[in-house]
Parts: sequence; structure tokens; C-alpha cells
Amino acid sequence: MKVKLASNYGFCFGVKRAIKIAESYENSSTMGPLIHNQDEINRLKNDFKVGLYQDLNDVKDNDTVIIRTHGIPKNDLKDLRAQNAKVINATCPFVTTPQQIVKKMSKENYSILIFGDATHPEVKGVQSYGEDQEDVHIVMEPSDLEKISFKNNKIATVAQTTKKKEKYLEIVNALILKNKEVRVFNTICDATFENQDAARDLSKEVDVMVVIGGKNSSNTKQLHSICKENCEDSYLIENETEIDNSWFKDKNLCGITAGASTPDWIIQQVVDKIEGFN
Amino acid sequence: MKVKLASNYGFCFGVKRAIKIAESYENSSTMGPLIHNQDEINRLKNDFKVGLYQDLNDVKDNDTVIIRTHGIPKNDLKDLRAQNAKVINATCPFVTTPQQIVKKMSKENYSILIFGDATHPEVKGVQSYGEDQEDVHIVMEPSDLEKISFKNNKIATVAQTTKKKEKYLEIVNALILKNKEVRVFNTICDATFENQDAARDLSKEVDVMVVIGGKNSSNTKQLHSICKENCEDSYLIENETEIDNSWFKDKNLCGITAGASTPDWIIQQVVDKIEGFN
Repeated sequence: MKVKLASNYGFCFGVKRAIKIAESYENSSTMGPLIHNQDEINRLKNDFKVGLYQDLNDVKDNDTVIIRTHGIPKNDLKDLRAQNAKVINATCPFVTTPQQIVKKMSKENYSILIFGDATHPEVKGVQSYGEDQEDVHIVMEPSDLEKISFKNNKIATVAQTTKKKEKYLEIVNALILKNKEVRVFNTICDATFENQDAARDLSKEVDVMVVIGGKNSSNTKQLHSICKENCEDSYLIENETEIDNSWFKDKNLCGITAGASTPDWIIQQVVDKIEGFN
Repeated sequence: MKVKLASNYGFCFGVKRAIKIAESYENSSTMGPLIHNQDEINRLKNDFKVGLYQDLNDVKDNDTVIIRTHGIPKNDLKDLRAQNAKVINATCPFVTTPQQIVKKMSKENYSILIFGDATHPEVKGVQSYGEDQEDVHIVMEPSDLEKISFKNNKIATVAQTTKKKEKYLEIVNALILKNKEVRVFNTICDATFENQDAARDLSKEVDVMVVIGGKNSSNTKQLHSICKENCEDSYLIENETEIDNSWFKDKNLCGITAGASTPDWIIQQVVDKIEGFN
């Protein structure tokens, strides 16, 4: 069976980078899971002795601790260092950017607005870099702005890297209409949308489409739904064991894509198996 | 006849201020007409000996020259000062703001984008404050952005004070999607829109509406058209000589508004005449 991979799929730049970092520090521990994929966490544990801490209190003197792509709040980083842990920072550079913007802008007396989910670790980290925590505000919707009173009429805005640009613009527009200066930093990362665009394109040209990723992963489910729109024979699987060879009967070309938490080695096993069919 | 004035009408803050300044400098000259109303220019000439220069070359040593609300290009100001003229700056403070923003932002290596009409004196003045004239760009439409290549990926934007906010947001949104940082200064003045909003409100509650202003003035024509929507008996006049008393037959309340270039004394003559009707 002929197979074609989407032009973008699977891990984003930041996750690939964090996993390489983890592989280079044997006997280290990540602070929270590095990725939402248990198979990959097991691989790092088995092959590189990379452990997992859920809480700062788990850390012991002289531990090597890896900060995951989301980053962590400024004070947690300080606490880690105070515990004599060796800290390896695998925060995605696209997340470090809004952290540093918030730090700089609040030093320059801008009120800070973050577009994102206040409960998300990335947003908690970014928020922590504000000098005046009472003037760092987090919104999900333009209507959330009504509850906010900024201390300054100069506002600096950043967005959670995985958010949608359209919604960010709606929020920014509402701000511009009410404030003299709005300093808009476009911190949204294209990775998620690049996987979606590539899946859309590929699903238009193939006879059957296989999407690899967690069945509970919202980004994988979205990829599957995009593929279904263009290619009725689109299947969502978690790994190569779920492949059914009847899917490829009378088909010429199979497209493959994968969710943002699907490691390359799982994708490769799927590719190998499908290529093995006549 | 009972008369009610709109809650906002006629001159904006900047024009009122410029005329007061002109009245306090007898024997001065304005650089270009202070206002698009010949009656008012004649009044300043007759009552305060305020003359009119069309060109920098007209200026003679020791002249007192008044800069009008639009402002003038930086180098013209320099030339005026070099000619030993006494320069009285009646530039509207709402126009000085974008001039100073462009100066400061281009010194900080931002590319500059101005939303406005490149041929308008205000925009020419604001533009002139850019340090690197090749990196000061002027657009009227979002599609104009396609032709522009900015030197930096940090953009600072200002708008001509009389432009519409909705269009400014469209342009800003297009910028945000393509640049890492967009520093948006909301320099649009509400005066024009306040007159329109007040005319809309008033025309809903009166039996007849009189709009005073130049018949070629686009802002007066727009006021008239807004009034017509709510009050069929809306009339556009340039001054009190055009009033026809048949308009007020069987009417109880006459609303009055005026375009941005209509002086108060012309409005007062209209009010007095209409109030004189039974």
C-alpha cells in the first residue's frame, strides 16, 4: 500500500526539543508529564531513566529537574533552585517569549492582558512574570474584559501559544476601542494549525486516511474530523495494533497524520505496517 | 417656534481653540485656511486682521504665523522659524499626539504605519515626524498593506484623527496576523462621530430638523442624511437667509445641528430666526 505523510504532523518544535533534552539527561526527572502520551513517558523511563515528579515537594537535593514546554511560575523556579536542584529548562522558546514580554512590559508600567485559560500551566507561568500581579489579567472571551479595571491606559497583550488568532483579534479590538495604547504581541504558535492545514490538504488527495493519536485528545479528534470532511474513509487509531487491513481494499493511496502528542516511533510503526499491505 | 440644539454640533475642540488663538494675535496670518468656511475667515480678517498665507514663500521677516489645527510638516516648521517668523502653534493637541508618537516610535526602531489619506495636510504633518521616511507607510485600506515591506517586524500604528475606527481595526488586525509586535495607538478623535450620534438622537424626537453647514461639505451632508433617516422634514442650509417659514407650519419642535466648519455665530442667527416664528 502506498503511503503519504502529511506535510506537518505530530510533535511540534517545542515538544521535539524537550524530548531531546530529556534524552540527554539520564536519571533526571520532569516536573509534570513532558507530553500527554503514556507510551512516550514509558520509553523515556525505560531507555533514559527519566522519572516524573508531580509536585515541587518531591524534589530532593542534587536532583536534576527538567522544566517541561509549558514552563512554570517564576516562584516555583526560584524554589527549585533554592532546593539545590539542577534545573534544566525545556520551556518552549515560544512560551519563554510571552513570559519575557510580560516581565518587560509590566516593568514599563503597562497593564497586562493575557488571552488564555487561567488554569493552564503555560498561562500560570506567563502570568507569574508580571511585576504587579493585581494588574495582570486573563481573559478567554471579549466579554470577560467588562469585569476588568486596568491600572494604566497603556495595555500590553500576549496570547497563550495554542489559542486561535481570530478570538485574539476580537479581544484586541475591544481593547483598542477603549484604550489609548495597546501593544499587541502575537505569541500564538502556528504548529497546531499547520498540522490541521496539512491534514486538510492531504485528505483531499488520498483514498483512505489514518489519523494517529489519543482517542481522548481534542487536537487528534479535530484532525480526524477535518479529514472526514474530505475523505469519508478516515480512521482514528492510537497505534499500529488497531489497523484493520480491510480499510485498504481497492484503495491506492493512504494518507497519514498524527496528533501533537504522538511520537514519531509510533507513527513509523503505523507506516511500516500499512506499507506492508498489498 | 421651539428650538432644541443637538447635544454636540459644529466646531470641534481643536477648531474652537485655534480660532481663539487667532483672535488673540491681531495682524497675524494663518498658514492655509484655519477652517473651511469663508464667512468665518472673513470675520477673522475684518475683526482681528488675521490674514491668510497659502505658501511658505509668502512669509516675510517678523511675521506672526499661525499653524492651523492640521499641523504642518516638521521641515516646514523649521523653515518658518529660519525665516524669523514668530510661529504660533494652533495644531490640535489630538494631532500633536500622533506626530510625537511617530517621532518616538521611529527613534525606537519601529516601522511606522499611518491609517489615513496621504494627501491630507494632517497626515503629511504626522508622516514628517518619522526618522526614516522610507519606513513610514500610509494606507487607506487593509489591501494597501500588500504593497508594503516594513524594515522591522515591530510596527507602530497611528490613525488620522477623523478616520473611522472600524476600518482602523481591520488594518490593525491584518498587521497583527503578520507581525510579532504591533503597537496600536488609538489616535482617532470622537468629535465627528459625537456630532453624528447627537444628530441621530435629536432627529428622532423633533418634528422638523435644520442642519447648518456647507452644501459641499461631506461631514455636513452626512449629518443631513442621518437626520433624514429619522425625520423626513430635515433641511440643509448654509445660513439663516435660506430658511423657509413654511417648513415650520403645524410643527412643535425644531431640532438644529451644524457641520464641523460652521461657526457658532451663524448657528445663533439661525436659532434666533426660527425662534421668532409663531
